[in-house]
Amino acid sequence: MYSIKVRNPRTGRIDYRFEQTETEELALVAASLRDAQKQWLEGGVEMRCRMLLELAAAISEQRGSLFDALTADTGRTRETELEINAVISSMERWCRLAPELLAAEENKKTSIPFIEIGRQAAPYPLTVVISPWNFPLLLSCIDAIPALLAGSAVVVKPSEITPRFVEPFSDILAAVTGLAPVFRFLQGDGSLGSALIDHADLVCFTGSVKTGRQVAEACARNFIPAQLELGGKDPAIVTADTDIERTAAALCWGGMVNAGQSCLSIERVYAEAPICHDLTAAIAQEARSLTMNTGNIDEGEIGPIISEAQRDIIETHLEDAAGKGAITECGGRITEHNGGLWCQPTVLSNVDHDMLVMTDETFGPILPVMAFDTDEEAIELANDTAYGLSAAVFANDAGRARHIAGKLEAGAISINDAALTSVMHEGEKQAFKSSGMGGSRMGPASIRRFLRSKALIENTQLCRDPWWY
Amino acid sequence: MYSIKVRNPRTGRIDYRFEQTETEELALVAASLRDAQKQWLEGGVEMRCRMLLELAAAISEQRGSLFDALTADTGRTRETELEINAVISSMERWCRLAPELLAAEENKKTSIPFIEIGRQAAPYPLTVVISPWNFPLLLSCIDAIPALLAGSAVVVKPSEITPRFVEPFSDILAAVTGLAPVFRFLQGDGSLGSALIDHADLVCFTGSVKTGRQVAEACARNFIPAQLELGGKDPAIVTADTDIERTAAALCWGGMVNAGQSCLSIERVYAEAPICHDLTAAIAQEARSLTMNTGNIDEGEIGPIISEAQRDIIETHLEDAAGKGAITECGGRITEHNGGLWCQPTVLSNVDHDMLVMTDETFGPILPVMAFDTDEEAIELANDTAYGLSAAVFANDAGRARHIAGKLEAGAISINDAALTSVMHEGEKQAFKSSGMGGSRMGPASIRRFLRSKALIENTQLCRDPWWY
Repeated sequence: MYSIKVRNPRTGRIDYRFEQTETEELALVAASLRDAQKQWLEGGVEMRCRMLLELAAAISEQRGSLFDALTADTGRTRETELEINAVISSMERWCRLAPELLAAEENKKTSIPFIEIGRQAAPYPLTVVISPWNFPLLLSCIDAIPALLAGSAVVVKPSEITPRFVEPFSDILAAVTGLAPVFRFLQGDGSLGSALIDHADLVCFTGSVKTGRQVAEACARNFIPAQLELGGKDPAIVTADTDIERTAAALCWGGMVNAGQSCLSIERVYAEAPICHDLTAAIAQEARSLTMNTGNIDEGEIGPIISEAQRDIIETHLEDAAGKGAITECGGRITEHNGGLWCQPTVLSNVDHDMLVMTDETFGPILPVMAFDTDEEAIELANDTAYGLSAAVFANDAGRARHIAGKLEAGAISINDAALTSVMHEGEKQAFKSSGMGGSRMGPASIRRFLRSKALIENTQLCRDPWWY
Repeated sequence: MYSIKVRNPRTGRIDYRFEQTETEELALVAASLRDAQKQWLEGGVEMRCRMLLELAAAISEQRGSLFDALTADTGRTRETELEINAVISSMERWCRLAPELLAAEENKKTSIPFIEIGRQAAPYPLTVVISPWNFPLLLSCIDAIPALLAGSAVVVKPSEITPRFVEPFSDILAAVTGLAPVFRFLQGDGSLGSALIDHADLVCFTGSVKTGRQVAEACARNFIPAQLELGGKDPAIVTADTDIERTAAALCWGGMVNAGQSCLSIERVYAEAPICHDLTAAIAQEARSLTMNTGNIDEGEIGPIISEAQRDIIETHLEDAAGKGAITECGGRITEHNGGLWCQPTVLSNVDHDMLVMTDETFGPILPVMAFDTDEEAIELANDTAYGLSAAVFANDAGRARHIAGKLEAGAISINDAALTSVMHEGEKQAFKSSGMGGSRMGPASIRRFLRSKALIENTQLCRDPWWY
């Protein structure tokens, strides 16, 4: 047995342990999930919806235990509320949408003389979800829900950094007896995730570019689809005609919610030169108004750094920027309180693309602001990145905003707001560059990722001269 | 310069040479294609359709030179006619379909209070097509046509074993001045294909499982989609109530057209025990009626083995089967005529799954026939394979046929016919197991593979409390 020790982000202490699932067990687990999947599929989408609504209701009822564990995992309460609410509403939303979406995929028939063509839309039998530590519950469920409704069985390997929520979640799940056999959580580190891929028909992975590339290559070797949502370095472009205070507030939310530990968070701001100074000041003012929840967990907007390894990345970026001449408008340091680590809400000016903080994913509550002169320059700066997850454009001139948005190489562009793609589920988006691969996680298309098309082509006349079509 | 010598499949002689495109040129070529793609996209789908119809008309007009070169590449004329006809009709069909299909993907808008969500469906700028030697023209165009209509630029790297058709095709293409800048053929071997992947936004590959896996892994490293159509070992299941002669004729067509050098060819037959003997005899009788085009290229249904390397595989499979007790009902040998290699139309009985000819792709005009007792056994035998490209079921009882078809792990099932998926373009299909990866190459969905979704999410009220969604 391989025991994994877990650090508490608010205290730095190891206060949780779990046993990693043995890789030798995986073949049995996969066989059991595959076996249960047959009934799950045959039961029909209405049954599957009933089961997921039962789960949603059970989560609502037993919210407390889940809330406490997820809060212990992440050291914050606001985003914990948000995660639980989002998962419940996502289940409800998908259950409204799925029957119609699946009916549209299934049994399309085309007839041409002598030939009838039918289509089966068969789910991949076993979906593996490998999820990260920044929104542990939400990102364990975001792909699992449409996968289950499509008719897949799902096994989730959540991050070993935030495993506490799994026990209460699994308890809630176990009571939904029609669902539990096709929806399993297995605990372990990356080695378990890697081993799971060889049992999967499809893999959904949310996490780093480096691990994502390994997942993609492993899936490619097995010829199975990889649905990846990886890092981002989301830019925001702000033109001179925007409302500066409102924009500053939106940017701070987009850049600092969950202490910046979000792949969709705004990580760099390009402000049109005439307002650059004022916008920077407004963002700094807003950022100074945000407080860290160091003492009372319910007070303050900025939670702790969840993964200790992130501290080095953030510090490297801040030191690199300072060393190259960046000016710290506010914040600028990681502070320790009772063993936990918090990054101060930070605004930087006088930055450029020679600095890591403008090119590499920081994953902290840090907004560097840089000036631009022309829209072309802003677009070029925004696209000067290895990432292409999402972006934001702020402009009072809607035509100008849309023009800029159209030129950005990213899957989702928020206009006059930040990180809308994280809260608006309707927008179909696919990652650009190193930010991911696969179909859209958002929008109705998201369920289609879990279906494979099979054509049944029937010669209804039983006659033809086969050698001369 | 790296010069590649090309063997003529009818004479075994080297009678063609070409210079491989230097990998140092690729960056420039890719830049030029990417540059031209912008105009190609902006011109709109109607313009793109006009250009492809112009190309189709030019191919019809200058058919002779293309026909001669493609025939020299492949050593057969019947399938050459078929390839050219299929490419022309595919262009015409896609030009009828594309405007409506693209309109359906573009600019879907959803409005919810305060928020308007639009969708851009942007093509991957540069599609790389790597095509094989068995249908050199058809399989160079099958993905390129929808890619071009979607708005991609396309570069094709055809097989170095059958390169002669490229010169006349490129000449025809060059005269369609609006299309030529976004549709290029580059000649070379696998090293060029491999180098091209690093310049692509999306790769379509048709070929072997081994190379396909390398392509998939290279694409995964770059986080770009790989659309793969690889090998097959397509089974046919024949129940006792079918018309034996008609089925035998369909199986011979499905297994021996293009001398079996087709990934969708029938490579193994499972016959219900009561008819196994008679069906085997009928297939053998039909196969004996097929002749090889050794002398007059226009006489006979069976062309030469196009790739010399295939000889060893076919011989190994035949020797392995004979050594393990298979009975050769007809054919059974590779014969040489004036330096070319032909495989005799071959029917084998007394075969089982210990023989390579029942498990590995043979790619020759060979039909091994094995008996089964129950439908479950037939399904199990058909699914006992590393492949899952397509399959066929013959049964007079339509319900039974559909039941069996529904249980087969393959992308397209022909019912009461063979290899229909190669001629019916309407059936959406995705490969199972090692036979491929990616979206459907057939059906309207095929064009969707070349589009990436980008969401534009607009806050139309410019107001909200950003911290509390």
